[in-house]
Amino acid sequence: MKIPSPPTQWLRRSALLALTLATALPTAPARAEDGYELWLRYRPVSDAALRNTYRSAVTGLLVEGSSPTLRATADELSRGLTGLLGAAVPVVSEPVRDGLLVAGTRASSPLVASLDLTAELGRAGEEGFVLRAMPVRGRRAIVIAANRDVGVLYGAFHFLRLLQTQQPIAALSLVNAPRLRHRVLNHWDNLDRTVERGYAGFSLWDWHKLPDYVDPRYTDYARANASLGINGSVITSVNANATSLTPEWLAKAAALADVFRPWGVRVYLTARFSAPKEIGGLPTADPLDPQVAAWWRRKADEIYALIPDFGGLLVKANSEGQPGPQDYKRSHADGANVLADALAPHGGIVMWRAFVYSSEVPDDRHKQAYNEFKPLDGVFRDNVLVQVKNGAIDFQPREPFHPLFGAMPRTPLMMEFQITQEYLGFATHLVYLAPLFEEALGADTHAKGEGSTVAKVIDGSLHGYAHTGMAGVANVGTDRNWCGAVFACANWYAFGRLAWEPGLGSGAIAEEWVRQTFANDASLVLPVKQMMLGSRQAAVDYMTPLGLHHLMARGHHYGPGPWVAGGPRADWTSLYYHRAAAGGIGFDRTASGSNAVAQYFPPVAERFANLATVGDDYLLWFHHVAWDHRMTSGRTLWEELLYRYQAGVDAVRRMQATWRALAGRLDGERYEEVQAFLKIQEQEARWWRDASVLYFQTFSKRPIPAGYEPPAHDLEYYMEINKRYVPGI
Amino acid sequence: MKIPSPPTQWLRRSALLALTLATALPTAPARAEDGYELWLRYRPVSDAALRNTYRSAVTGLLVEGSSPTLRATADELSRGLTGLLGAAVPVVSEPVRDGLLVAGTRASSPLVASLDLTAELGRAGEEGFVLRAMPVRGRRAIVIAANRDVGVLYGAFHFLRLLQTQQPIAALSLVNAPRLRHRVLNHWDNLDRTVERGYAGFSLWDWHKLPDYVDPRYTDYARANASLGINGSVITSVNANATSLTPEWLAKAAALADVFRPWGVRVYLTARFSAPKEIGGLPTADPLDPQVAAWWRRKADEIYALIPDFGGLLVKANSEGQPGPQDYKRSHADGANVLADALAPHGGIVMWRAFVYSSEVPDDRHKQAYNEFKPLDGVFRDNVLVQVKNGAIDFQPREPFHPLFGAMPRTPLMMEFQITQEYLGFATHLVYLAPLFEEALGADTHAKGEGSTVAKVIDGSLHGYAHTGMAGVANVGTDRNWCGAVFACANWYAFGRLAWEPGLGSGAIAEEWVRQTFANDASLVLPVKQMMLGSRQAAVDYMTPLGLHHLMARGHHYGPGPWVAGGPRADWTSLYYHRAAAGGIGFDRTASGSNAVAQYFPPVAERFANLATVGDDYLLWFHHVAWDHRMTSGRTLWEELLYRYQAGVDAVRRMQATWRALAGRLDGERYEEVQAFLKIQEQEARWWRDASVLYFQTFSKRPIPAGYEPPAHDLEYYMEINKRYVPGI
Repeated sequence: MKIPSPPTQWLRRSALLALTLATALPTAPARAEDGYELWLRYRPVSDAALRNTYRSAVTGLLVEGSSPTLRATADELSRGLTGLLGAAVPVVSEPVRDGLLVAGTRASSPLVASLDLTAELGRAGEEGFVLRAMPVRGRRAIVIAANRDVGVLYGAFHFLRLLQTQQPIAALSLVNAPRLRHRVLNHWDNLDRTVERGYAGFSLWDWHKLPDYVDPRYTDYARANASLGINGSVITSVNANATSLTPEWLAKAAALADVFRPWGVRVYLTARFSAPKEIGGLPTADPLDPQVAAWWRRKADEIYALIPDFGGLLVKANSEGQPGPQDYKRSHADGANVLADALAPHGGIVMWRAFVYSSEVPDDRHKQAYNEFKPLDGVFRDNVLVQVKNGAIDFQPREPFHPLFGAMPRTPLMMEFQITQEYLGFATHLVYLAPLFEEALGADTHAKGEGSTVAKVIDGSLHGYAHTGMAGVANVGTDRNWCGAVFACANWYAFGRLAWEPGLGSGAIAEEWVRQTFANDASLVLPVKQMMLGSRQAAVDYMTPLGLHHLMARGHHYGPGPWVAGGPRADWTSLYYHRAAAGGIGFDRTASGSNAVAQYFPPVAERFANLATVGDDYLLWFHHVAWDHRMTSGRTLWEELLYRYQAGVDAVRRMQATWRALAGRLDGERYEEVQAFLKIQEQEARWWRDASVLYFQTFSKRPIPAGYEPPAHDLEYYMEINKRYVPGI
Repeated sequence: MKIPSPPTQWLRRSALLALTLATALPTAPARAEDGYELWLRYRPVSDAALRNTYRSAVTGLLVEGSSPTLRATADELSRGLTGLLGAAVPVVSEPVRDGLLVAGTRASSPLVASLDLTAELGRAGEEGFVLRAMPVRGRRAIVIAANRDVGVLYGAFHFLRLLQTQQPIAALSLVNAPRLRHRVLNHWDNLDRTVERGYAGFSLWDWHKLPDYVDPRYTDYARANASLGINGSVITSVNANATSLTPEWLAKAAALADVFRPWGVRVYLTARFSAPKEIGGLPTADPLDPQVAAWWRRKADEIYALIPDFGGLLVKANSEGQPGPQDYKRSHADGANVLADALAPHGGIVMWRAFVYSSEVPDDRHKQAYNEFKPLDGVFRDNVLVQVKNGAIDFQPREPFHPLFGAMPRTPLMMEFQITQEYLGFATHLVYLAPLFEEALGADTHAKGEGSTVAKVIDGSLHGYAHTGMAGVANVGTDRNWCGAVFACANWYAFGRLAWEPGLGSGAIAEEWVRQTFANDASLVLPVKQMMLGSRQAAVDYMTPLGLHHLMARGHHYGPGPWVAGGPRADWTSLYYHRAAAGGIGFDRTASGSNAVAQYFPPVAERFANLATVGDDYLLWFHHVAWDHRMTSGRTLWEELLYRYQAGVDAVRRMQATWRALAGRLDGERYEEVQAFLKIQEQEARWWRDASVLYFQTFSKRPIPAGYEPPAHDLEYYMEINKRYVPGI
């Protein structure tokens, strides 16, 4: 999957490889499909008629321009078309025949400049592209045009995706541009290569060997991101280490930036707020201290001297033990602004996280970020974005949208999703997250009346934000298949696609991914897609049905822990969230309780506050409900809980059946991995169900109905399970 | 590189692959050589005439027998021959034509049983094999015969090695059997997947997903070991964790054992001596307590119920903070014997490490293992081996052999080499270790007069040991190329080959490895081999010339730290070892000093004790020598030190030149990796040289001679270097 950048080197290698291929290939040991190629496999189009159609549509490749990005584009098109069409596509320098694929910008390509694409390019913007079947110098051609090189690259990936998913290309005419400007992965990677909440091995960044040795895998990482339009990578953890800002480590970051640059991916770092003290030798990190401001300015200058297109800084401050401006009685805005001022001359941004909650504040954790940040609306510098998790607690299987969305019209809010499955079974549970992302993006804040969706908040259309963005906490690591599981890569894919176009549907994204990752055969695509689309609800049901949340085992969050109590903070326990008692279960967040509902705009607040309108999904999130409460299903709450837990287990079993039916239709290594993981998931869905039901039964005192699969062990057994050395630190 | 075990599955996959190949291969994106295939690449024999010779010598494959090991053998031969000969070799069931490769045991194969190989098989023993060109039922054939299935497997790998290295096979007639019985890798792998002194990523064992998911890479690991004859793998660290002996974790170990078994590789575990307290609930771990003995017996029974061919336990006790029998005022023999008694009914062994030295003992660390263990000779059970590092300090670039070798005629001593380069530059320094291993094995203990080499001690021929063995601290991890560097894999290879046959020369091993790993072309083989053979002396020269030792940076041991002083233990400092002063440098271990020399047999002791006979290599190991001491070279000691440091740097530069001359002759990815690492090595050789020379100059007060490359910085610069987050914990 690797491309060397200089074409001469590529040609030399190609020649060598061709030689090897000629003698070896008919008999070389075939390598298994191990997931490394992700959705960029470029296998020959299986439909012979369609392959011939494509072959006649693309008879040659003409990419004008020689920038690293355009060279990468040409290489990718060449590689992709060669694979898909089953024959090398010649590179030509003049449009002397029909069927050329012409790609470039008006600056790089006289041919593109000669075409009448002014209107389309006007709509393409900085990163978008035009894809059109149209005559070029009188010859039939397909044109990929853009205003900047990276747009051409994105267009090339889009075109290859159309072929990989077997779409018609004869009458292509589209303009496609990202709706969000900053589309970034957040790597929670430490300098010792451990990854917080990482379930795919360890950090891709081999710091020890950087900057001298540049692993070819870094290129494949950037390339995979570029194929989705992801244009930024925060390479260090939000629980930041000041060492990453020292000269020795900045050189390592710069080496990564050099690899990523041709692919349009900018490097970002996390800033430890106390860095001026820890590595700067200053007595304070007070953001209003002029020495501190000067230190950050010098640090920014130093970074940009090494990385001219450095993206900026991501900061977690005054949260979960991290230092921050409040250590000096300054506000989050004071903290963000001192960094923003340092970065502004270079065009960098600050992404300041709103994930804050204090153990010293007695109020519902749900309310704290809103309470802290809303008063600061309009006080941040123009190059600050406040990065808000999709929900107010923490990446639960299902959460209502964060009340900050819509509440800060003068401060660009960007979305933070978690791609890695911290609360969703790690890599061994198949949970396709696009429905979760879609649900959050589609939620209606009513900030400016009906239709004020979260998507319209973060894409800037609701409030006219100058900056827009979406961050995803990455799930990639050293595992050969990148994400720890073949299906977990669908979540990386979905995040990238939604960051480009938040309106894409989770079904359409699943279908794209399946077609590229496995095959286009409808008898495979449909069942796999259905399995994916149902998987998130399955996880909600077997883990935290009906609005229950944060019931996972302490610390590592692997497996059930509804009994978790005690410890340093109440809001790190399960009891804080489920509040099960003899009278009922659930967190009253209405006016009779914490009144967190009041942070939502009235129509939303009213809906959530009313037991009749809140709906099953958020019932116990907002209400403490009696065990015998009658649900819309006709069941009591207790019966419904059990019904949901069982439904989750049953859904996993259906996923297993779906997969088994595909035996022999898929390559062995990936097939067997999925099968093994589904077995683990079914075991653990039962573990979740049985542990939770037995535990809640100690409060409900109600029997387990007949016909319900009885728990395999007693409650003590489940409470004694103590998983050790689980990954993700 | 993966083989599925059941042939039917293999055939099904093959059919699928063949289909894919047919449509895809001429145009599929070629994958780079990334080192994953190690020395088992099986590329077509490049010499066309020789390929034809081989083709006519092997026209078909006939492996009789259906055990998992024989199926693995047949698959390996099929894969290897198909690759090497450039055409599939048909599997036949009857010897109806000339040119068959016939493989099996007399029990598995009526054909093999029909041959007159009694004498040869008598010499082949339990694990050896016979390889002979001979008629079978009147047809020309090549026969691989053995007494046990695993011998056939080893013979198959040997045969494939002959072809890969382009050796003649027409008149094959050899019997080959391992000289050592236990040939084991020691993985210092923790349960959180960190690897102590590991420089190739993280642990191969994905504990969290075991036993349900079995990574295909485990098979390739076992297969690579089998190709060398390595028959054991201690999968957990010597700094042991009792958790690994709990039922949950034993199930994980059992899953690995199931994968390794067909390849003849037994699983071993490390035992934490305090496990009876930590996981057994006993009040003591006193080895003479009957409850403790009973606990270990039950634990052994439990292990063997899961892993019937479990190899045994490796123990580090009362060393560097580990618990042990001395906590109860019992001897190492008491400790080893309680475990040995538990394992004996099942045929398991105990490997008890002699690497002990106490901070409470004022005596030279060099002497402590001998002082502790020699008095215990003859007291250990029959199934105990005492595992002794090659030298008395700790895996230094060069050490004299350990004085225990030859000193315990009634206790089997096994060798412990370190394959991972803890003190040798980690993965980024090219240091081929076979010369170090060879030097240790060839050292003459004089235990029973001249010729009593260390090799004869450990192969049992000197003392008639019932058990024999060699352990290598593994250097493999999750890195795609297994060892962190392509060339580091030569050390895994060399260890395995020497464990099978300690008399193999380091040059012959290097040549085998280069031919299989890169190519057979002499114009490539010779320079690469020379580069490898000189690399260990280069490292000695730029790190610790003339018998200096243990001068590495504190803790992680990366880079120079001759100034390391203070801390919890004197013998964890550099000052303890080099003793530089105004008058001279070196550790006086003669009668006027610690008298460690007295632990060697008289001819050796006399040679080491005498300044005239000790030789340059061990000069400062055994003597404190004046700066103006005149060396055999005619230079003073000070001048010689500088000369050696410079020679080390120069040698690395020659390695760089050698490699550069091969540009374009090797595949790109591996070529570039080596080139980048040699650049790092050259930088760090200068770092070692300059830091060491400047530091020692503070004692010698002598100038740096003209013509010598001056240090780039001052001493303070080097002393302030503080490498952080280096791998290997």
